[in-house]
Amino acid sequence: MNNIQQYAIGVDIGGTNTKYGIVNHRGVISHNGRLSTAEYATAEAFVEALYAALEPSIEEVGKQHIKGIGIGAPNANYFTGSIEHAPNLNWKGIVPFANMISEKFGLPCSITNDANAAAVGEMTYGAGRGMNDIIVITLGTGVGSGIVAGGHLIYGHDGFAGELGHTIIRPGGRKHWSTGLCGSLEAYASATGIAITAKEMLAEAKSPSLLHEYPLEAIDSKAVFECAQKGDALAKEVYRFTGQILGESLANFVMFSSPEAIILFGGVTKAGDMIMQPVREHMEKNLLPVFRNKVLLTFSELHEADAAILGASALVWAMKLKS
Amino acid sequence: MNNIQQYAIGVDIGGTNTKYGIVNHRGVISHNGRLSTAEYATAEAFVEALYAALEPSIEEVGKQHIKGIGIGAPNANYFTGSIEHAPNLNWKGIVPFANMISEKFGLPCSITNDANAAAVGEMTYGAGRGMNDIIVITLGTGVGSGIVAGGHLIYGHDGFAGELGHTIIRPGGRKHWSTGLCGSLEAYASATGIAITAKEMLAEAKSPSLLHEYPLEAIDSKAVFECAQKGDALAKEVYRFTGQILGESLANFVMFSSPEAIILFGGVTKAGDMIMQPVREHMEKNLLPVFRNKVLLTFSELHEADAAILGASALVWAMKLKS
Repeated sequence: MNNIQQYAIGVDIGGTNTKYGIVNHRGVISHNGRLSTAEYATAEAFVEALYAALEPSIEEVGKQHIKGIGIGAPNANYFTGSIEHAPNLNWKGIVPFANMISEKFGLPCSITNDANAAAVGEMTYGAGRGMNDIIVITLGTGVGSGIVAGGHLIYGHDGFAGELGHTIIRPGGRKHWSTGLCGSLEAYASATGIAITAKEMLAEAKSPSLLHEYPLEAIDSKAVFECAQKGDALAKEVYRFTGQILGESLANFVMFSSPEAIILFGGVTKAGDMIMQPVREHMEKNLLPVFRNKVLLTFSELHEADAAILGASALVWAMKLKS
Repeated sequence: MNNIQQYAIGVDIGGTNTKYGIVNHRGVISHNGRLSTAEYATAEAFVEALYAALEPSIEEVGKQHIKGIGIGAPNANYFTGSIEHAPNLNWKGIVPFANMISEKFGLPCSITNDANAAAVGEMTYGAGRGMNDIIVITLGTGVGSGIVAGGHLIYGHDGFAGELGHTIIRPGGRKHWSTGLCGSLEAYASATGIAITAKEMLAEAKSPSLLHEYPLEAIDSKAVFECAQKGDALAKEVYRFTGQILGESLANFVMFSSPEAIILFGGVTKAGDMIMQPVREHMEKNLLPVFRNKVLLTFSELHEADAAILGASALVWAMKLKS
């Protein structure tokens, strides 16, 4: 059996670090490692460094057993294979990244943004296994999303579909610190948004809260989580409010693509039932009856440390299906 | 050439009447006709009547030249081929309609709801020709939608995707007369919603309006249109408000599936620029920069009288692509 085993390389490029690994069909990662993204001034230098880092592992596995390379990167466009004007990377302008990788490694390469890669990863190895219609929402510093419909990632006509964090759920509401849009999901349901909500509630609070013991600048989503775990009413109210807004947004997403499952991923999900309960309640409440009690709402089953590599590697199996 | 010409039968089933026609690849309808839907107590009787009505035309065209039958019907499920619990039809429960048609006519049959059929029609013969990613919004008594992504209609895991009229755009806002949901797009942007907005604005109006000359129960979207055309400020404000809400919703839809075009269809679009200008303004204003000035926002190019038949017939060409 071993000689027909196939592998995919998964590469997760972040603004600071890049992680990579070689992954088999079942999602087992071997040969994983990391290198700095930020220390390379050009994409060319980075590609050289990535090749140097991966080459021994590729030799060990045998290049003929490697199907291709999948990459998750900020502002990566699946259609063009380019990384386009990524604000958090040193490489400016439009970088034809997939081509550069493909030429250097002599392997086919597919590229997309991190949230899309996460969605393919969930469908291939995670909570969305065997499903053709899922939505993955990543709740971290920002709110990202990847949408799979009819077995295909939704890329849109330009490769930029799936920016659900920027959909407006409170028209005229909180102004987003970076986009300037008012009332977007990310302004509330991201870690940043949760910290803002906590500060707003504290400013108006009439009853005591453990959060008062923190200096204002130290109030972040971690502080809210710690206080909520200790039973602090205000911190728990922050999660209830956040969950309500997220739940209302999810209802809208369900009425768009009617997914079999919505999979939540990322740091904010550590709050568990404190956020999941209001999410579920307000999602169901805002659905047409035909959609009620049908959507599996669940947390990711992938280990957070591995998920980005797995997601990127899963692009390679999708590549296989395309040809 | 004539002997390789192929045809599709398009059937549009409404609560009161059913329209049908035989359509060629270019969207030219021949042999069109209609029969009552409401007068048949059972689906079986209706299928018999439809067959009797269409048989002479099928003979004339030659059955061997007909590729199949496409049907747009309320509550029709593409996956199961059934019409399920349609409130406006006499046939109760779950009717295996596509099978019944297919057996009676000896032709393959595909079925979906009217808004999905409209989307396939626009992509095949209309303003969405040659595009793989479009959203069609039907603005009539209600607000319907059909979404095409990557060349495929989005059906969702259960066949019910694309209920964009029921997405919430004003949380806690106007209660929908039928669904009970608060603040859904349909509550504002449908003909029914426009009439409600007009009445609300009239009740609070401090300046004169031509609409005051109508008895309250006669104020409908037609009255608003007539007054707006005469330059009435309040009636024009009704369209501006409606357009704002629709535009905000469209921005959310764009950030979901990044379509090349959004095509508006139905009675409400008669208002032309009075509604289109605010729609466009508020859509662009609520988009991330990456999506701005890229989406073609346009009215349907199909004649309203033919559109439903064309859309249904287009399902047949899609059938061909699937096999």
